[in-house]
Formats: sequence, structure tokens, C-alpha cells
Amino acid sequence: MIEYISGGVCAPKGFKAAGVHCGVRKNKTKRDLALIYSEKPASAAAVYTQNLVKGAPLTVTKRHLADGRAQAIICNSGNANTCNANGEYIAESTSALLAAGLGIKPEDVIVASTGVIGQAMTMEPFERGIPELVKALGDASAPAAEAIMTTDTHAKELAVEFVSGGVKCRMGGMAKGSGMIHPNMATMLGFITTDCAISPEMLAKALSEDIPGSFNMVTVDGDTSTNDMVAVMANGMAGNAEISSCGEGYAAFCEALHAVTVYLSRQIAGDGEGATKLLDCVVTGAKSLADARAVARGVAGSTLLKAAMFGADANWGRVLCAVGYSGADVDVSKVAVSFKSAAGEVEVCKNGAGVEFSEELAAKVLAEKEIYILVSLGDGDAASEAWGCDLTYDYVKINGDYRT
Amino acid sequence: MIEYISGGVCAPKGFKAAGVHCGVRKNKTKRDLALIYSEKPASAAAVYTQNLVKGAPLTVTKRHLADGRAQAIICNSGNANTCNANGEYIAESTSALLAAGLGIKPEDVIVASTGVIGQAMTMEPFERGIPELVKALGDASAPAAEAIMTTDTHAKELAVEFVSGGVKCRMGGMAKGSGMIHPNMATMLGFITTDCAISPEMLAKALSEDIPGSFNMVTVDGDTSTNDMVAVMANGMAGNAEISSCGEGYAAFCEALHAVTVYLSRQIAGDGEGATKLLDCVVTGAKSLADARAVARGVAGSTLLKAAMFGADANWGRVLCAVGYSGADVDVSKVAVSFKSAAGEVEVCKNGAGVEFSEELAAKVLAEKEIYILVSLGDGDAASEAWGCDLTYDYVKINGDYRT
Repeated sequence: MIEYISGGVCAPKGFKAAGVHCGVRKNKTKRDLALIYSEKPASAAAVYTQNLVKGAPLTVTKRHLADGRAQAIICNSGNANTCNANGEYIAESTSALLAAGLGIKPEDVIVASTGVIGQAMTMEPFERGIPELVKALGDASAPAAEAIMTTDTHAKELAVEFVSGGVKCRMGGMAKGSGMIHPNMATMLGFITTDCAISPEMLAKALSEDIPGSFNMVTVDGDTSTNDMVAVMANGMAGNAEISSCGEGYAAFCEALHAVTVYLSRQIAGDGEGATKLLDCVVTGAKSLADARAVARGVAGSTLLKAAMFGADANWGRVLCAVGYSGADVDVSKVAVSFKSAAGEVEVCKNGAGVEFSEELAAKVLAEKEIYILVSLGDGDAASEAWGCDLTYDYVKINGDYRT
Repeated sequence: MIEYISGGVCAPKGFKAAGVHCGVRKNKTKRDLALIYSEKPASAAAVYTQNLVKGAPLTVTKRHLADGRAQAIICNSGNANTCNANGEYIAESTSALLAAGLGIKPEDVIVASTGVIGQAMTMEPFERGIPELVKALGDASAPAAEAIMTTDTHAKELAVEFVSGGVKCRMGGMAKGSGMIHPNMATMLGFITTDCAISPEMLAKALSEDIPGSFNMVTVDGDTSTNDMVAVMANGMAGNAEISSCGEGYAAFCEALHAVTVYLSRQIAGDGEGATKLLDCVVTGAKSLADARAVARGVAGSTLLKAAMFGADANWGRVLCAVGYSGADVDVSKVAVSFKSAAGEVEVCKNGAGVEFSEELAAKVLAEKEIYILVSLGDGDAASEAWGCDLTYDYVKINGDYRT
């Protein structure tokens, strides 16, 4: 039902994007200001970090989205605009400047920032960059997807086509991740566009129900950022009858949304700071969804397991150890663990104890770039999946000296 | 009141120790079996990991300590005796063999293991090693302190002298730490001896009240081990009137115990796997002790801050970020942060926002081996302290290939 297409956030009708260098970053070759624009005012919803320390852009965006409508997303990288005395002033002024340039209402602007926390910020780069940004608006999504990157090694975007209410609709998304990634109820930055017609209420419901099983199941380093945000704009230009209640049309929308958010989640995990491998922990047989999620996140987030995966060491004791401290209600004597990848599958633990396995096969399995850690709890029907990455020398290198 | 003396766990009257190589480890130059023995049966108490996956030695020790008495502690390194089908058999047989060798009751043996989880284990090394171990018993504590080490770079032990009930008493301790260190209600391995007379009940009370503010405030990598245990034996040979209720004598005992546990906790944190620096996070002005502890552990355990400390980068935004996601009830706008070491002190954040500071001074402060991260919450009287270490290339190296 879902078809993958090109075009990113610009694939849905009526959306344009741009990305420029405005000077928040010193490095002039790195775009640092992104814009996503909808020709028509759109239903809009967002979820935010649960960190008590919140970036000023989140406070401002929350205010702007009170009416469930938006028409543009602006995002800078290089400075988080967090723990600055003038944070809200900067975020509001940025919205106002952009609104003037686009001829829209300042309250219809979603504003986001990512980068160093607590670094002084002025309006100067925005005053210079916003006119250029508006002029650069076009059908290419890549410049915007690049502009929101920090230590990401590549841009993360995709688009899908789906049918809702008999009408072909499109949805596009982009995200940035890399470090400080362990979202709690909201997440890193993710921006999603769609031309599907959906009411603000149903859009907010779809997003808030999707996040716990998608972005919130990503963990890079256990640090929940102050600036996490996922925002969606739905401008209705596909021409379907507006989704305003549950039903087939809504289900199709949710399915498309989940395809987009899971794809971006996996991309973020696999491109975690310094990562060489994507870890995909699949938990089955849990007593409850909460237990399944706790185990999946615990295993994918175990520092020791992450280091072992970097070294392609089939140290399954660390999987069991993480299951044990995850806080989930688990009968350890029923746990089974396998490692799986394109190179094969190897069972390493059954009934909570080790089984003999070929170290040679295990080394082959773990040498791949995408490793599945299959944890079967044998105690119920609930399942979950979490995405993480290995812990490498480069993670330490990148984060030992991030500010300079 | 407390005087630091030499002698480790053998400093108190009536305690002997030994450490030999028995063959649990292949490396013949590394001692892997430790014994601490009391000439007289002693009051004894222990605390254990809260991980659902528990090493078999913990189950057996719990059973043996049901009567609050013990006379010997035996501990092997190299194999955790966890997730093995024959785990309890190994731990009980080890106790029985040792008891026969020493002429004591098997139920008076505390048994502990540390090393790889889920690796097959036989009695063979114990059958060979225990007679040698018993023969080697003597007044030197160092061989035992070495034998419990895994990736520790040095043995951790100390002894103190204190006065309880007008009588001079002594207390000694040893510990191993290094990786998988993020205790929850119990901790890594810690063995404490004292000749102070104290009832099993008061000993258990003293230990369980001490742990939350000592060993449980250590974090190396956020992974709570399956084999954490701290055990104390008090043989009464100092000749004081047995402490059987609260009062001055008990207070003096608790003070000595805290001196021993905090010293060992700091040693464990500073010798975390791959660590080059001890991080000491001191939180003041919290609304409650629980809030103070959550913040201290959150900051000391932040992967990103640990990496920044390795790089001597005064990235205080990561301190604030960790305060925000610690789960504590905090008013961010009142938070102040300073970094302090032998080289000086530098305030980097006040009222939740950055203050101008000398990067040169900050770099000097952070170049030291022992860094204090001072977090003032400005919201109450509660305080706490947590100990961690930096995250380094060597942590990744050590843990990328631990089993081989």
C-alpha cells in the first residue's frame, strides 16, 4: 500500500524547501538555516522533549501551534538557542522576520534550533540569511535536509505515496540525529510534510500515538536533548476528504506516518555519533508492551553491549544483564537471545543460559553493518523494537571536543 | 576521630587473607581466587544487586547469611558464575570445600564471583586452588585484593581506626570495580572487615543505610552488574561492648563505615575502565535528598559529559541537559554550575544561563585528574555527591573485546 518515492519533504503537493548558510556556524561551506514552506496554511502538530531544560524554540513553537495550524518550519543548526537569556526573543524575532518575508502570520511559523547549548546568539545571522532563504525556496529538499545536520554524516530524508479516502496522498520527512539521542516522549529533530487532508486534532493524535513506537525507541547515548522536536504539517492539497475521525482513511495515514518515522529513526540510529553499525533490538514474548519497550531500549542502550558490538564480540551475557536491569517484569529463565544479520543467525542463549555456538559464525554475523539482536522473553504476546548503534573510538573523539 | 592506617582487611584483629591463582583464568600470573577469614564467627551482612539476573553466588550467600553470621569470604575473578546451569552447585560446593579446609560451617561462607557472564564453569580450579588458598592465609591483604580484580588497574583497599564505646576498633576494606558499574541498591564487589562488636541486626542496618550514599552513587557506564555485592564481617575481637542499638557507639561505627565505603567508591570511579579522570559531582540546594541524588547520578553518568571531560572541554550545557533529564524536581532558572580541581575553580553557569568565563582557566582546571562538578540548585537544603569517570578510547577498546 505504501510506495517509496523521491522528493523528501517537497514530494507532497504545495511544499517547497530551502537551505542556506547564514552564519550561525563559522564554517561557510556548511548550510546552517533550513526552511520548509507550505503554499497553503496547514494542520500542524508537534511533540517535544521531556527534558526540564527546554530550548527557547520549543516554548515559542508550542505557543504558535496552540491553534493547530502552521505554514512554515525554520530551523538553524550550530546553536541550540537554549540557556540563553534572550532565547525567546531570538525565536520570536526569527518567526516574525520569516513571516514578513513569506507574507504569512508569525504564529504560523514552527521554529527549531540544534547545536551547542548556552552559547550567546544574536539576530544578525537571521537578518542576513532569511531573505536569502526565502529567495532560495524551491522543489529540492536536500539543501534543507543538509542545513539541519550537526555531526550527522549524511542527510536523512524520504517520501512515500499512500491512498487515503480513495485519493493518492504523499508524505515526506527529514531528520537530524547523531549525539544526545535518547528521546523521551518526543525526539531529536524530525520534520514531516503531507498533502493529505487531516484535522489538527487527528494529526496530533496520529503523531502522539506514533512517537512511542518510533522516535522514542532510538537511543544513541542515553542523553535526552533539550531541543528534541518532531513537527508535521498537513496542507490538504491532495484533495481527499479531510480525515476528522478514526476509520480507514486515518489508518492509512497512520501507516504512512509510521513508515516515515521508523525509516528516519533507523537512519538516526545507524548514523549515531561515531557509529559503524546499526543495532536493531527486536523483543518478542513480553508480558506487556511497556515491558517489551523497556527491554528493547535497555538492550539497545547498554554501553557495554554497544562496545561489544563494535568489537564484533558475541558477549550475550551483556544482553541478559541489560534485560535484567531494564526494569521490565521478566522471567530470566525463559529468555532466549540470537544475533542475526545478512551473514546469518546464531542462537547464543536459551532458557536464560548459554548454548554452544560457533564463534566463527558469530563473528561473521557481527561483522555486518546492521545487526539484529533478537530477544525472546517467552512470557506473553507483546513485542517491540528499538534502534541503537555501536560505541566507538570516534564517539569519544567527536564528543571530547564538540564546542570547538 | 577516624585515623587511616595500613593493613587493609587484615588490619582488624583476628582477620587473615590470601590470594592465589587457581586456574579460573588462563593467565597464570594473575591471582584469581581470594579468601578473607575471621578467627571467630562474626556478625555479617550483605547487600546485593537489584538486577533481575543474579549471579548464583548471590543466591547462595543470601541463604548462608540468613542467620546474620559468617566466618569467611571466598571470591573468584574471571568467571561470574552467572547464567550457568550449574551455578548454585558450583557456589555451594566451593563453600563446602572451603569450610572443610578451614574447619568452619559451610553456611558461614560468603561466596562471590566476578568476570564473564554465561561461561561454563567446573569445580576443578576450586578443588586445586582451595587447599593452597587456605595454606596461604596470612596477615597480608594485598594478594586477596589483587585476586578479586578484573580490568581494575590497581588494587583498592584501606583500613581505618576509630573509637566505639571507649574502645579502639579497626575496620578494613577492599573492592573491585572497573566496568558494568552503575550499582542499584547494592554494588560491585566490596568486602569489609572489622573487629568492632556489633549485632547482626545493627550491622545490617548500618550497611543498608550507608550504601545509598556511597557505593550506589558510583557510576562508570550505566550498566548494573548481575553480581554486585558488598559484604561485612564484624568479629567483635576489639573487645567493646556489642553495639545492639542506636547511640554513640553505633554512630562512631557508621562514621567509620562511611569513611571506608566512600574511599572505595571514589577508588572504583577513578579506576573505571579506561578512565583518566575521577569526576566528583557535588549537588547542593536540592528540594529533597532523592532529587539531590538523582541530579548527582545523572550528571556523573552523562555519556556526553564524560566524553567532554576526557577532552577537557568545559561544555557546561551538557551538565544542564543532564540535570534536566535526571528526573529530579528542579527549577532550571536557579541552577549554577562550576568546575573545580587542584588548578582552581571556574563558574560557567548561573541562574540557568551561561556566564562569561576564561576558557584558559577552564582548560587548566579540567586538565587535572580529579574534577569536581559543582551543581547548586538554589532550591532547598538537600545535598549529595556522586562519583564517575571520563569516557575514553580505552573504555571502547577494553569492552570491544572483553571475552578474549
